[in-house]
Amino acid sequence: MNLSKNSLNSQRFFSRFKASFIPNGIERRLSYTPYRILSSSYNTKATAIDCEADKLTYEVPFTSVSYPYYKRDPKFKKITPEDIHYFKSILPPEGVLVADGVQITEDDLTPYNQDWFKSYRGKSQVILKPYTTKQVSNIMRYCNTERLAIVPQGGNTGAVGGGVPIFDEIIVNTSNLNRIRKFDSLAGVILCDSGCVLEHLDNYLAERGYIVPLDLGSKGSCQIGGNVSTNAGGIRLLRYGALHENVLGLEAVLADGTIIDGLSTLRKDNTGYDVKQLFIGSEGTLGIVTGVSLLTPKRPKAVNVALVGLESYENVQSAFLRAKEDLSEVLSAFEFWDARSMYYGKALGSKKFRVPFEREYPFYVLVETSGSNSDHDSEKLGHLLEGLLEDNFVKDGVVAQDRTQYTNLWSIRESLGEACGAPVPIYKYDISLPVPVLYNIVEDLRQRLIECGMLGPHGPVSDVVGFGHIGDGNVHLTVFAKEFSPKVKSLIEPYVYEWTSQYQGSIAAEHGLGIKNSEYIGYSKTPAMVNMMRKIKRMLDPSGILNPYKVFHDISESQPTQQ
Amino acid sequence: MNLSKNSLNSQRFFSRFKASFIPNGIERRLSYTPYRILSSSYNTKATAIDCEADKLTYEVPFTSVSYPYYKRDPKFKKITPEDIHYFKSILPPEGVLVADGVQITEDDLTPYNQDWFKSYRGKSQVILKPYTTKQVSNIMRYCNTERLAIVPQGGNTGAVGGGVPIFDEIIVNTSNLNRIRKFDSLAGVILCDSGCVLEHLDNYLAERGYIVPLDLGSKGSCQIGGNVSTNAGGIRLLRYGALHENVLGLEAVLADGTIIDGLSTLRKDNTGYDVKQLFIGSEGTLGIVTGVSLLTPKRPKAVNVALVGLESYENVQSAFLRAKEDLSEVLSAFEFWDARSMYYGKALGSKKFRVPFEREYPFYVLVETSGSNSDHDSEKLGHLLEGLLEDNFVKDGVVAQDRTQYTNLWSIRESLGEACGAPVPIYKYDISLPVPVLYNIVEDLRQRLIECGMLGPHGPVSDVVGFGHIGDGNVHLTVFAKEFSPKVKSLIEPYVYEWTSQYQGSIAAEHGLGIKNSEYIGYSKTPAMVNMMRKIKRMLDPSGILNPYKVFHDISESQPTQQ
Repeated sequence: MNLSKNSLNSQRFFSRFKASFIPNGIERRLSYTPYRILSSSYNTKATAIDCEADKLTYEVPFTSVSYPYYKRDPKFKKITPEDIHYFKSILPPEGVLVADGVQITEDDLTPYNQDWFKSYRGKSQVILKPYTTKQVSNIMRYCNTERLAIVPQGGNTGAVGGGVPIFDEIIVNTSNLNRIRKFDSLAGVILCDSGCVLEHLDNYLAERGYIVPLDLGSKGSCQIGGNVSTNAGGIRLLRYGALHENVLGLEAVLADGTIIDGLSTLRKDNTGYDVKQLFIGSEGTLGIVTGVSLLTPKRPKAVNVALVGLESYENVQSAFLRAKEDLSEVLSAFEFWDARSMYYGKALGSKKFRVPFEREYPFYVLVETSGSNSDHDSEKLGHLLEGLLEDNFVKDGVVAQDRTQYTNLWSIRESLGEACGAPVPIYKYDISLPVPVLYNIVEDLRQRLIECGMLGPHGPVSDVVGFGHIGDGNVHLTVFAKEFSPKVKSLIEPYVYEWTSQYQGSIAAEHGLGIKNSEYIGYSKTPAMVNMMRKIKRMLDPSGILNPYKVFHDISESQPTQQ
Repeated sequence: MNLSKNSLNSQRFFSRFKASFIPNGIERRLSYTPYRILSSSYNTKATAIDCEADKLTYEVPFTSVSYPYYKRDPKFKKITPEDIHYFKSILPPEGVLVADGVQITEDDLTPYNQDWFKSYRGKSQVILKPYTTKQVSNIMRYCNTERLAIVPQGGNTGAVGGGVPIFDEIIVNTSNLNRIRKFDSLAGVILCDSGCVLEHLDNYLAERGYIVPLDLGSKGSCQIGGNVSTNAGGIRLLRYGALHENVLGLEAVLADGTIIDGLSTLRKDNTGYDVKQLFIGSEGTLGIVTGVSLLTPKRPKAVNVALVGLESYENVQSAFLRAKEDLSEVLSAFEFWDARSMYYGKALGSKKFRVPFEREYPFYVLVETSGSNSDHDSEKLGHLLEGLLEDNFVKDGVVAQDRTQYTNLWSIRESLGEACGAPVPIYKYDISLPVPVLYNIVEDLRQRLIECGMLGPHGPVSDVVGFGHIGDGNVHLTVFAKEFSPKVKSLIEPYVYEWTSQYQGSIAAEHGLGIKNSEYIGYSKTPAMVNMMRKIKRMLDPSGILNPYKVFHDISESQPTQQ
């Protein structure tokens, strides 16, 4: 963890930054907001955090300890030497990892047993890493017969614990399913194994003039199969649409080993129910995705990015409406964050960045365009920024002029997500709401914690911040604390869920339910819908071996829910 | 039916047309292809058709006669006076139409019993037209208990008989569910009843600066609930995406009367399985859609349309690749047709149009852009057309300069679909294929019928033509005949399905399965997928009352399939 707070005062960098950062076409319009050196007063409004993250040694608690009301379902068999023997008979030696205390220790399995955010930790003793769909099918058929519970796992970058076991579930990791099977450059359709890493896919497509219609902070690790299984949203959903649209076909293996071969590469196919949709976002509870057919757009020839500072959330909304109007088809990102988020991004994220403004603003918006004509897009963006400045919706703004500046501006945004993965006590909520009330939840929760004496220099809570995708009505509500405390948690939950439900929001916008949110599904879905989901689960996985305890694990028998 | 063949020779119109049709910005580039008067030699290549459509009196045969291997399932009760009494107790008088031979005759029910294309005709004696979701729920619960079969019906514009009964199924028509419930102009989300007519919705949105992300030839009659239930594709899918993306939420009533309230207006919601997806494209066999929440884009400020003539299908493909490259985000339609299609559009469609080219070309492409900046889009389109002409991919081209010309160009395309609805013997196939082989199916079938002596001046087949959406890999393969003949049909089917299957195409790209294609699902879906669909059907509609005989009615018991 690289703390780069001290580098904020580097004048040299910002002088250079300033010189090159004013674009030709924009200079006139933005000239009355010159980019001066970031003042040393930046950060004064944010509450100091009390940890030095890079010095922490942080042991992730077992999920079965932090969620004591989850009990191992006794219907699942404990793994036996015969089971291991079977797996070794169908997979090559490197495809079966078993903690035997000799060649492989439990520590060796830790990267599979705990999640990227270091919030969840299971106790699996067996990791299977198949190379083919047929091997996955054999694994599933065997486990179904033997009643062995399974957790499908991709890049293990999920945010809600959906990709790691709670107890001794066998992990079926898709990393070895990593072949690109075919690319059709006329139609722009790629067909690949589910274990392909998102960034690798994108690099492959970049060489051919295409782009993956999905971009996530975790792209260097996450896998397309995991993206599909969690219906990942990310940054450019606004421009390229959701996976429910862009996934043209899927190959998936059901709990009983049946291979569902639906790897269509067609954009239109109305021959019966679109069953592939069920696997998109079902978090590995209905099947293991082994192959994906994806519609890929032409790679934009021109990408522009601007950062603006705004005085209020009302202005963020006005700017968004204006951006939809002026940028329309080339608007590819409209990300916002509050000043407090940025402070934590700087303090806890690994990305180095510079904020190219003289003073601090309560809100920041990053606007990106992706289009086919650089001049046209620059003109559209310039027109937007000019209008926003003239109408006083934004107070200051910069447009990146080269790759370095582009990366710098995006690094600010990316650091916010990184901060949420820091090994410090954080309560994270991934909420969808109607845009007009999107930031109210941050303010209301902050006020609540202040009024209860929890937030402040002497309270256990450092800050409540919000950032996210305005274009998708999605805020990442984040509470930075000095310690985890039941008292604090009881003030946040179910308050946040109730607040969200009141405005017909989603308590899991893009991260999914996993372990974290499974008991709260009722805040966003009616009993009739949940009942329909349960029926689907029972129909496709009658023994319940696929990713048990996730999505809607019924914990009511072991302990009353917190609702 | 308005036959406008004679007006093709009108010189006056084309003189005027020519004068105004050359755009300022495009004139220079296109000046070496001046728009001259349409020559009288146009049409000479097409085979004359042997009917005068407007003089035909055409009685639609009963589906039970034309598909004799469909047998009424005896598990369904025949409707009784007590059933009518119940329906009258829960609906206002005008909501229950029963053929009593006095006030209401069977002829009065014909518009509900037969489809728009006049291909299918059922014998329902009862039409129910509920006004509320609760009424739909009551109807369903009653029919489920009483084992009364039901056909959900919207605007009745389907192409495969999915929206009309075969026997005495009760028709539940959604025309009275026609309220716009809410529109959020910040998010661009409309929430409405399923019976809202597509064009009405679009007019409503136009006044507010938004657009329905769907456009169909039948927009004046079709309903959004029917669009959703059939996963309608249409012209602008290329630009705005499919309904699996744009439908944010649904309200649907299951066979047992359960109301699934999933009317989310959120763009992102990963709380459990996306069950609404099952209702999109399931053709009313899993539930009746009663409410829809739809993401609507900003209405484009600039729409340009060009028509070009091309010498070969290879050139159509090259032009498509170039259009994706040059127009990228503003490309909103890329429609193609062959010269023979256009002849039938002119002869059998009701739309009047003029072809602004001097000579006939084997292929035509209509390119449309929809964007936010007229100058930018015109420049992009001009650049594309200039390049296509220079590289000899297209031979001639025009760009519409005003609404009249825009409408004229689109009328050509729309007339092609209309021709397929003419009351003459037509075999229609709605096929998805990889773009490189998309037109091969037309040529191969044409050749096959010629070789068998079926196509020609003395054969029963007049022509085999193809038109459709290149951007979606979707061709409407159409065989115009002089009479329906078992011999001809046996030469076309299952040949067309086998051909499609061989290239992993879809035998029902956007029209669905309905009655027409239900027995052929196996050509596009594996047994495992069909089995999964059947399980879903049984799970949600165990009594099978919802739109029986459709999608995958198993007719093998009554008669061997034609496969």
